[in-house]
Amino acid sequence: MATLEDVLSAIDANQGAALDRLFSLIEIPSISAIPAHFPDCDRAADWLVGELASLGFEASRVDTPGRPMVMGSAKAKTRDAPHVLFYGHYDVQPADPIDLWKSPPFAPRLEPGPNGERIVGRGACDDKGQLMTFIEACRAFKANGGLPCNVSVLFEGEEETGSPSLPAFLTKYAKQLKADLLLVCDTSMWDAKTPAITTMLRGLVLEEVIIHGPKRDLHSGMYGGAAINPIRVLSRVLADLHDSNGAVTLPGFYDGVEELPEEIAQQWRDLDFDDKEFLGEVGLSVPAGEKGRTALEMIWSRPTCDVNGIVGGYIGEGTKTVLPAKASAKVSFRLVGKQAPERVLQSFRAFVKARLPADVRAEFISHGASGALGLATRSEALRRARRALEAEWGKPPVLVGSGGSIPIVGSFKRELGMDSLMVGFGLDDDAIHSPNEKYERSSYHKGARSWARILSALSQ
Amino acid sequence: MATLEDVLSAIDANQGAALDRLFSLIEIPSISAIPAHFPDCDRAADWLVGELASLGFEASRVDTPGRPMVMGSAKAKTRDAPHVLFYGHYDVQPADPIDLWKSPPFAPRLEPGPNGERIVGRGACDDKGQLMTFIEACRAFKANGGLPCNVSVLFEGEEETGSPSLPAFLTKYAKQLKADLLLVCDTSMWDAKTPAITTMLRGLVLEEVIIHGPKRDLHSGMYGGAAINPIRVLSRVLADLHDSNGAVTLPGFYDGVEELPEEIAQQWRDLDFDDKEFLGEVGLSVPAGEKGRTALEMIWSRPTCDVNGIVGGYIGEGTKTVLPAKASAKVSFRLVGKQAPERVLQSFRAFVKARLPADVRAEFISHGASGALGLATRSEALRRARRALEAEWGKPPVLVGSGGSIPIVGSFKRELGMDSLMVGFGLDDDAIHSPNEKYERSSYHKGARSWARILSALSQ
Repeated sequence: MATLEDVLSAIDANQGAALDRLFSLIEIPSISAIPAHFPDCDRAADWLVGELASLGFEASRVDTPGRPMVMGSAKAKTRDAPHVLFYGHYDVQPADPIDLWKSPPFAPRLEPGPNGERIVGRGACDDKGQLMTFIEACRAFKANGGLPCNVSVLFEGEEETGSPSLPAFLTKYAKQLKADLLLVCDTSMWDAKTPAITTMLRGLVLEEVIIHGPKRDLHSGMYGGAAINPIRVLSRVLADLHDSNGAVTLPGFYDGVEELPEEIAQQWRDLDFDDKEFLGEVGLSVPAGEKGRTALEMIWSRPTCDVNGIVGGYIGEGTKTVLPAKASAKVSFRLVGKQAPERVLQSFRAFVKARLPADVRAEFISHGASGALGLATRSEALRRARRALEAEWGKPPVLVGSGGSIPIVGSFKRELGMDSLMVGFGLDDDAIHSPNEKYERSSYHKGARSWARILSALSQ
Repeated sequence: MATLEDVLSAIDANQGAALDRLFSLIEIPSISAIPAHFPDCDRAADWLVGELASLGFEASRVDTPGRPMVMGSAKAKTRDAPHVLFYGHYDVQPADPIDLWKSPPFAPRLEPGPNGERIVGRGACDDKGQLMTFIEACRAFKANGGLPCNVSVLFEGEEETGSPSLPAFLTKYAKQLKADLLLVCDTSMWDAKTPAITTMLRGLVLEEVIIHGPKRDLHSGMYGGAAINPIRVLSRVLADLHDSNGAVTLPGFYDGVEELPEEIAQQWRDLDFDDKEFLGEVGLSVPAGEKGRTALEMIWSRPTCDVNGIVGGYIGEGTKTVLPAKASAKVSFRLVGKQAPERVLQSFRAFVKARLPADVRAEFISHGASGALGLATRSEALRRARRALEAEWGKPPVLVGSGGSIPIVGSFKRELGMDSLMVGFGLDDDAIHSPNEKYERSSYHKGARSWARILSALSQ
């Protein structure tokens, strides 16, 4: 009978083919935010269905009002094996600013790096590389005696746009999706040599605000001074969102924000996280958030407000003395603890409206609102996963928070009562959502080996 | 011998052909702000050279480090006639936002309007329609006994981008350009039935500021809270530029700003300018400038600060939780009285720098800086022009200020000691610099007749 060692050896032996498969997936520009790329999202979904079918999974594409889901399932080699559901997403972020990419974003390539070769391309890490680590682990089991667990998979195509179709989908397919444990591979390692399990996730409120002033663009010479400028109004609103200590000023914003339990706080202090190194890697030196907090608190356990995009008036080369009819901003709030997404959203809208002068109106577009999540840190599944990761990496994983949001985790908890195990192999410098996104080749290879070990450990 | 009446009749008889000529010029997308359109600027210059030559002008294209100039000259039919230099510009503003145009911006067409037919297209008014009124007047004289004045023309191709090549050009060609009077046709009428002569012009300082933060775009989940967001810094700077009374807060900004002489103030009060109507036409109701000032003061005699464009982060459809590496704004200041452009520029830069937190730097790009101008209101040329315009329109022209800036007027005064006569036939609702720019057909036709009368009056 095939052993775990046989499975790991198969992963080692098939690295080249595994890389080709990942490249094929990256080559599909499945950008869910841009309608022109919707057909590419369909193609990526179909590609995954084909991949799963080739492994002997029952797999199908399930259409939604938005981008399609991919569902698949395969039985374990033994009865009474546990049932896991693996979640990943095949959609990617837009590639702009395109001129900062050193090579075309959807033409993946290998390049040398300080940790060995790396895979460069949009989605190399987030989430195509990560989800393929799990598929490659399943492939190795299938070729070596079968899966140790009953495995279902769900691949989404709208994760980067706030998962609008997911809640209704979960309700409709609750029975098929229900499993003992949700596995999510959309998170990071502690560093290139230290694995991590994420046990705390920030929530996310995404609001777009459009400030409307004059009914058309005006000449700033003819109207400047007398006509209200929407950029001026928008700047005032955005400037007012933070006080001089870096705190967010929305009324009630910090309701539900809790201080860290001492146990976790101590664990984080023990991590010897280096603020200067973390910020230095991106050209900064001083934490910009609330005074008196560490950078780790700012990104893991404190709520934030950021403007992710702003535009108004003439933005081409040179100048144009226009006084624009409108200006808009995409604003996001990262939530922690028990902050209520809907209350933050309403507080923001009231905050904007309170700052509108005469003749100006605000239009709001919600792009999603989800709360923060804390996961059980003492479960049996977590204990087994820690041991499996330690076996692979030679050191125990650290339990970390995550600044990002993975709404699926909350949805599964709420809708299906399922706990999650969040393990991922990204690195802080993977530049996900940025130009020249990459995934370490070692993350891809040892990521697949890690999942093999975890699946094996869960089935013991 | 041909009389002025013959000349005016010739203009009336040739309206169709004159319209065809203007359409040909509008069809050339001579956008000086966009490098891809530089060849079109060349084409527009060549077209004007050909047009002038066909009238019997000596005409040539003169290259500069930027877009070319067009120079032309023709002698009067009599000796001792005065010498006028007519200035116009053949370059136009960019056409964006292109989706708001009801028809392609460079496919001119006629459409019905409340004042009769109107010519729609980018540059229909600013400044192609306006400059062609003068050429058509010259054409009618040439075909009916000759010009009453010695006429030189100068057509520029960089007016919409701050005229960077003009100062050196004026110095180099001072001798050829020197004339008794500069005629400028880049201004507006009081209303569709009332002509105007502009005797006061605001200056213009154009500054672009780029706020640089992290060295690359970041994921706002991974870095949000800890990494400084350049949009937040830029918003703060821009919000601080105005106080709650609508005044500009730059230190020293109002140095050199003078109250109107009572004579002019009274004239303006007599105009019965209707703030509500002026603002109502563009969907507004309340003057947005300094408290206690009328809208007319705000646009003619008070300085302003406007943000003409702002951009940073993700501005496409949907959302992207990016924390951008930079954010930028195009800021303009309209100057009056004796405000010093260079001091305003320096004050702005210091103002920005004083608001930069750690890790953030500001980059500045100057797009020009020129002071305000007041013109003699009691000259003989002005008296004659007033009479000529009254004869054409049946009512005397009003003497107005202009919110816009025409740097050429200051340059000619400084470099060549020449006074200007600013007469134009635009209307407030011509939407220059905006989508669906238009020029009244009556402005085009009666504009040419007006110039015929003015040239005739100046030669008496």
